[in-house]
Amino acid sequence: MSIKIGIYGYGNLAKGVELAVKANPDMELAAVFTRRDPSTVKIATEGAVVASSSDIASFKDKIDVMIICGGSATDLPEQTPAIAKLFNCVDSFDTHAKIPEHFANVDAAAKSGSNTALISCGWDPGMFSLARLYGNCILPDGKDYTFWGKGVSQGHSDAIRRVPGVKNGKQYTIPVEAALEAVRSGSNPELTTRQKHTRECFVVAEDGADKALIEKTIKEMPNYFADYDTTVHFISEEEFKANHSGMNHGGFVFRTGTTGGNKHVIEYSLKLDSNPEFTGSVLTAYARAIYRLSQKGDFGCKSVFDIAPALLSPLSGEDLRAHLL
Amino acid sequence: MSIKIGIYGYGNLAKGVELAVKANPDMELAAVFTRRDPSTVKIATEGAVVASSSDIASFKDKIDVMIICGGSATDLPEQTPAIAKLFNCVDSFDTHAKIPEHFANVDAAAKSGSNTALISCGWDPGMFSLARLYGNCILPDGKDYTFWGKGVSQGHSDAIRRVPGVKNGKQYTIPVEAALEAVRSGSNPELTTRQKHTRECFVVAEDGADKALIEKTIKEMPNYFADYDTTVHFISEEEFKANHSGMNHGGFVFRTGTTGGNKHVIEYSLKLDSNPEFTGSVLTAYARAIYRLSQKGDFGCKSVFDIAPALLSPLSGEDLRAHLL
Repeated sequence: MSIKIGIYGYGNLAKGVELAVKANPDMELAAVFTRRDPSTVKIATEGAVVASSSDIASFKDKIDVMIICGGSATDLPEQTPAIAKLFNCVDSFDTHAKIPEHFANVDAAAKSGSNTALISCGWDPGMFSLARLYGNCILPDGKDYTFWGKGVSQGHSDAIRRVPGVKNGKQYTIPVEAALEAVRSGSNPELTTRQKHTRECFVVAEDGADKALIEKTIKEMPNYFADYDTTVHFISEEEFKANHSGMNHGGFVFRTGTTGGNKHVIEYSLKLDSNPEFTGSVLTAYARAIYRLSQKGDFGCKSVFDIAPALLSPLSGEDLRAHLL
Repeated sequence: MSIKIGIYGYGNLAKGVELAVKANPDMELAAVFTRRDPSTVKIATEGAVVASSSDIASFKDKIDVMIICGGSATDLPEQTPAIAKLFNCVDSFDTHAKIPEHFANVDAAAKSGSNTALISCGWDPGMFSLARLYGNCILPDGKDYTFWGKGVSQGHSDAIRRVPGVKNGKQYTIPVEAALEAVRSGSNPELTTRQKHTRECFVVAEDGADKALIEKTIKEMPNYFADYDTTVHFISEEEFKANHSGMNHGGFVFRTGTTGGNKHVIEYSLKLDSNPEFTGSVLTAYARAIYRLSQKGDFGCKSVFDIAPALLSPLSGEDLRAHLL
């Protein structure tokens, strides 16, 4: 019997989850829930239902795990606790500072409904968090480094688009190669914000806009750009559409440390052509684990730290030990 | 109260474990067990006991977890099941083909003694196994690649030293850079044994030995060298001691795959100045997890796949979520 997945929301991440469910033969997509008029939403899975998000309660016995694909800023703090009362669920909440609060809210809700929930899944937080945790445990005498990119930062792209005179904009976060090499050497460098990443912006300006002023406004924007070496390229709308519609991302997590005077470097990296499809694949693998924990009666909120890796796999313990250990 | 560690055997790996126990403030080394005369074994930890391996039963209440530092070929298949009857324990059994049998033996022994045991811990098997498992679960439509080195292969060095006329020898396994780059590109190449690794040998010949014959014998040795591009360097005993006494190692695990036509590359790599010290650090972190599982009454044999990552850390769930997630 396959695991019945529900998807809550139907944006880019949800479409990534939908692809991932198809790639896992022990799962099936039961329903997609949307705040829009369901008749206007076309999904890619035959046989799955599109329903209104206000009707989720009536699906209580038809969904084993709900994968919640809302945004961290305003959606997930409301959605995940509400859904965790009714369903096992997984989200990708990534507002680091608010994780403790979100965890507490979801934990109470999940326990009240005898459900199992996982928050902050994906690649960062998620796989990168695991790389940091394993690295810290193995090399207690060491240092962490996380680099992001090359990839699109949604927050920085939004910030560019709010600058007067900007019609469209995209920002790439790029790790500095020399900084990566310094970390890889095991020399445990102290790196400033500016030394770790550069920011590259592609901007479509409105007709007659003051490009010099736009560039200055972007480069001096506090928090977003002022602490970085930022380059701004003005391009046409056509070039923007042709070359900057991708959703590639990635990054690097290092733990470097010493034992008895010997140096060690642990490096974990991702190079992703599609950030939402990879993130959706991680959420889907963890949905399998959450389903299994709920079957064992292990209710409440979890993070990736609480999940034994074998629970992610469709293979048996015997097969895993024989083929992957 | 700190976790009381026992070390069984006192070779290079054991010394790595001893260093790691010192680096973890919630642990203490209680005793080292040796098959030699205990009075001849000097350890690096003040206050810890050196005892005979035949006396372990009398330490039953003084050790929380025994870290077994014997070899996989003949020691561990005997030692781990015998010790698992008496103690929680961790080993680094790495004979891949015999893992299922070893697991079954240790599982029965541990359950009979109400103990928790972990086998095949370290970096491969161990951290590399985890990288393979996570990668397979996230990208079911993909391909695995494992490369080893640059590092010393004990088995191949032993094989060199058995060649007539060889006084001393060391073999380095080296991943082929072009193969690494092909995998990183996401092109999912099919790679032969010869395309993945080269083997570099440093040999001290006996006086008057036929070096050409030694080189030919090494290069044509089946299983060990015949399927590889092998280079043989003849050096002096002095140069050997000065430059080839290290125990560095490392390697790379890749999972490459696609989702909806988009390519993704996951890479995990280790660069280790001391193989036994790093391996000892991994065993020690997992000893903490095994202790915790035993406290919960979760007895029997485990692999790294069965251990939730949070169990490795001295930090609380709250601290982990706040600082590493």
